[in-house]
Amino acid sequence: MTNDPTLDPQRRSWVEIPEGSDFPIQNLPFGIFQRPGETPRMGVAIGDEVLDVAALAGAGLLDELNLPLGVYFADSLNPLLEFDRTIWRGLRSRLAELLDVKDRELGTVHGLKNRALVAGRDVELLIPIKPGDYVDFYSSLHHATNLGRMFRPDGDPLLPNWRHIPIGYHGRSSSLVVSGTAVARPFGQRKGPDAPPAMGPSERLDLELEVGFVTGSANAMGTPVDVNRAEDHIFGLLLVNDWSARDIQAWEYQPLGPFLGKSFATSLSPWVVTLDALAPYRVPAPEQDPPVLDYLHEDNRLGLDLRLEIALATKAMPRPDVVSRVNFADMYWTMAQQLAHVTSNGTPVQAGDLYASGTVSGPEPEAAGSLIELTKNGANPIKLANGETRAFLEDGDTVVLRGSCGGGQLPRVGFGEVRGTVLPSGQ
Amino acid sequence: MTNDPTLDPQRRSWVEIPEGSDFPIQNLPFGIFQRPGETPRMGVAIGDEVLDVAALAGAGLLDELNLPLGVYFADSLNPLLEFDRTIWRGLRSRLAELLDVKDRELGTVHGLKNRALVAGRDVELLIPIKPGDYVDFYSSLHHATNLGRMFRPDGDPLLPNWRHIPIGYHGRSSSLVVSGTAVARPFGQRKGPDAPPAMGPSERLDLELEVGFVTGSANAMGTPVDVNRAEDHIFGLLLVNDWSARDIQAWEYQPLGPFLGKSFATSLSPWVVTLDALAPYRVPAPEQDPPVLDYLHEDNRLGLDLRLEIALATKAMPRPDVVSRVNFADMYWTMAQQLAHVTSNGTPVQAGDLYASGTVSGPEPEAAGSLIELTKNGANPIKLANGETRAFLEDGDTVVLRGSCGGGQLPRVGFGEVRGTVLPSGQ
Repeated sequence: MTNDPTLDPQRRSWVEIPEGSDFPIQNLPFGIFQRPGETPRMGVAIGDEVLDVAALAGAGLLDELNLPLGVYFADSLNPLLEFDRTIWRGLRSRLAELLDVKDRELGTVHGLKNRALVAGRDVELLIPIKPGDYVDFYSSLHHATNLGRMFRPDGDPLLPNWRHIPIGYHGRSSSLVVSGTAVARPFGQRKGPDAPPAMGPSERLDLELEVGFVTGSANAMGTPVDVNRAEDHIFGLLLVNDWSARDIQAWEYQPLGPFLGKSFATSLSPWVVTLDALAPYRVPAPEQDPPVLDYLHEDNRLGLDLRLEIALATKAMPRPDVVSRVNFADMYWTMAQQLAHVTSNGTPVQAGDLYASGTVSGPEPEAAGSLIELTKNGANPIKLANGETRAFLEDGDTVVLRGSCGGGQLPRVGFGEVRGTVLPSGQ
Repeated sequence: MTNDPTLDPQRRSWVEIPEGSDFPIQNLPFGIFQRPGETPRMGVAIGDEVLDVAALAGAGLLDELNLPLGVYFADSLNPLLEFDRTIWRGLRSRLAELLDVKDRELGTVHGLKNRALVAGRDVELLIPIKPGDYVDFYSSLHHATNLGRMFRPDGDPLLPNWRHIPIGYHGRSSSLVVSGTAVARPFGQRKGPDAPPAMGPSERLDLELEVGFVTGSANAMGTPVDVNRAEDHIFGLLLVNDWSARDIQAWEYQPLGPFLGKSFATSLSPWVVTLDALAPYRVPAPEQDPPVLDYLHEDNRLGLDLRLEIALATKAMPRPDVVSRVNFADMYWTMAQQLAHVTSNGTPVQAGDLYASGTVSGPEPEAAGSLIELTKNGANPIKLANGETRAFLEDGDTVVLRGSCGGGQLPRVGFGEVRGTVLPSGQ
C-alpha cells in the first residue's frame, strides 16, 4: 500500500483544504448528496466542498471505469457496492487524479470545474446506503465488561461465550437515518422494580458510539467468507450512533435480545471512508485469549487507530462539549472476524449491508462510548463544561460523534461527524 | 364483509378448480412467477393454474385501477404493497370478476384467455416479497411455555414480560428463500456441556412452523400505528419455516438473542393469501390475563381459524407424513397487537416488511410447531409412518408446512405449502 499514490502524504489538490480538515485528497470518502431541487447523486468530500462525481461521469471523465451512468445518479451507494474492490479502488484513484493539483483534465471541459464542485453547506447529505441487513455487534471487551458488571453484579461480568464468538444481533434497517436528523424520544413499555409495566416516553435515553462497515456483495448463500479474505468485501467505514432507550431495553430484552429499545432510530455519518484510505492507520489488533477457533483465526490481525469522541450540546450550551474519548484500536473482535462469523453459517452478505461494531469503550472508566457507562447506570451524572449535569439525555440535547486518524506524520483522514438532536416525545 | 362478492361461497370460476384445492375463486392469493426464459411478473393462484395478472394489465383489462404497468411486471409484490388497502381490494375484486364463470370480457381479447392462464407446474414461483425488515415474534403461549420449561426447569416457564409485550426480534432478510429451495445444514460454533467450543455442522437442526404477515407502508417515522387500525396495513399472510439450529442458538443467544442459529435460511410459501380473503375465518382471539396496556387494547380482538400441519418426508419415505397439527387461532398475541407494538416507538413499517408469528404450538403436547417441543429437546424422538424416528432433522429430510381455512360450510381457502429439503453441510 505504500506505493498507492492515493495515500501519498505529499499529494496536494487544486481544491483548497482548510487546516485540520477531515477531507484532504488522501481521504476522498463517498456519499450521496442533493442540490436544492435536483435529484440525489454520488459525491466525494474534499475539504469543505463536495465533488459531484455524477457530473464528472456525465462529462465522460470516468469512462475508463465502464460503469453504467446510473451508478453515479443513484440515491444510494448500493449500485457502486455491487461492484468489487477493483472498481472501488479504480474509481477513487481516478478521482484523486482529477483532484490532483497537477491535473489539467477537468479544466479542458468548459465550465465543468464550476459545475463539479459545490460547497458542502449548499447541499443536503443523504443517507449513503440502503442496507438490506443491519447487524450490530458487541465487540468491545471493555463495554461488555462494564455492562456485565452493572447487570450481573454477582457473576463474571463476561458471559462464557463472549471470548469465543463476536456476539451480535440484527438491528432495524427502516429507522437508519443520516446525521442531522432529529430523533424523537421514543415511547415505550417499561417497568420499574416495584411498579407494574407502564407506557410512556423513555426516561433513560442514551447514545452509543459505534463504527460501522459497509459491504459489497460478499458471498453466495451457503458459502462462508474466509476470515483472511473478509476485508476484500469491506468498502468502507462510517460513524454510527446506536440510540438506546435503556428502560425499554431492560424490560423487553429477555430472551430474544434488544428490540424496541434500539429500533426507533440509528444515526449514520454521511461519508463512507474507504478501507483503502484507512490503510496507513491499521495497527495490530489486541491479542485474543483464549485462542479463537480456526474459522476466526487471522494470519494478520489488524485493528484501526481511529480516535473517536462524544460531544454533547444542550439548549443552554450550544457548543458541543467533549465528554468522552476512545480509540477504535481497542476493539477485541476485528471487522474481518465479524464478517467471517456472520457468514460462517452460509448467510449471504449483500451490497449495502451495514455491520456496526457495538459501543466502543476503552480500558479507563472515563473512556466509554455510552452514558450508561460514563454515569454508572445514571448514579454518577457527568458534569458538562457549563456546569449542567447529565445522567441520560434530555430533550434538546444534541449528540455529536466524531472520528479521525493521523494528523501527525500522516495526513489527517477523518469521518466528519454524526449529529442528532433529541426532540420531546411525539414530535 | 358478508356483502363482499369476492367471498360469496356460491361464486364459480370458468377455471376448473380441483376438489380440495387451496385456491378457489374465493381465495386469489398473490405471488410472483416466471415462465422459462421470461422475466418475473405478478400472478394469482386459481385451482392448479396461475393467472398472469401482468398479461391482463398489458391488455388493458386492469386500467380502472390506474396502476403503473411496472407494478405488474415487478420481481416482487413490493410495488403493489406501496399502495393501500383500497387498491389491494380493488385489484382482487377485479380479478375475481374476470375469473367469474359469468365473465365475457377475457374472451373478447383474442388469445388472451390462453396467454393469461398457465399451469402451475410450468412456471417457477419466486419469493413474493423483498422485506426491508423481517421481524420474528414469539406469540404462542404454549410454545413460550414449552421452551421455558426446557431451558429454565426450576423457574416460572414464562418470563415476567411475556404477558405484557409481544416479544420479538429482528431476523435476517438476505436468507429468506421461497418454498422449494433446498437448505444446507449450517456450520456453526456450538459447545457441549463439558467440551470446549467447536465448529461443525449443526447436530440439532429443527424447523419452526410459523405464519407471517406482509405489510404495506404503514406509518411515517415517529408515528405509531393504532392497534385498532393496524390491520388496515396488513396485505396478507403466508407460511414461514423458521429453520433453527438449536445447538448454535443455545451457545450464542445470551445476551443479544438468536443470531446465526436462525440466519442461515428462512423459507416462505410463494402465495400471499390476502387478509380480505381470510375475513370469513376470523374468530375471537384468546382472552389475555392480565389485561394489556392501552396501546395494545383492541376493541375487537380477532384471531384466525387457520389449521396448520407439519409433514416430514425422508430419503426412505418420499411421501410426507404429518407429524403435528396446530391451529393459528391459539396465538396469544394478535397481528394487530404485534404491529402496534413494533411501531409504538415510532419505527417505520415499510411496504414488503415481513412479521412472523413465532412458532405456532397448541395446548396439547403433540400439537407443537417444532421438533424440539415434539421430541422434548430430543429425548423422545418421534416415530414416522415407516418406523423411522427423528429427534432432529437428518440430511435428506424434507419439511412440508401446510395451512388452510374453511372447507366445510365455507369454501376452503388454503396457503399451499412451504417445502424445503435438508442438504448435507457445505452443499
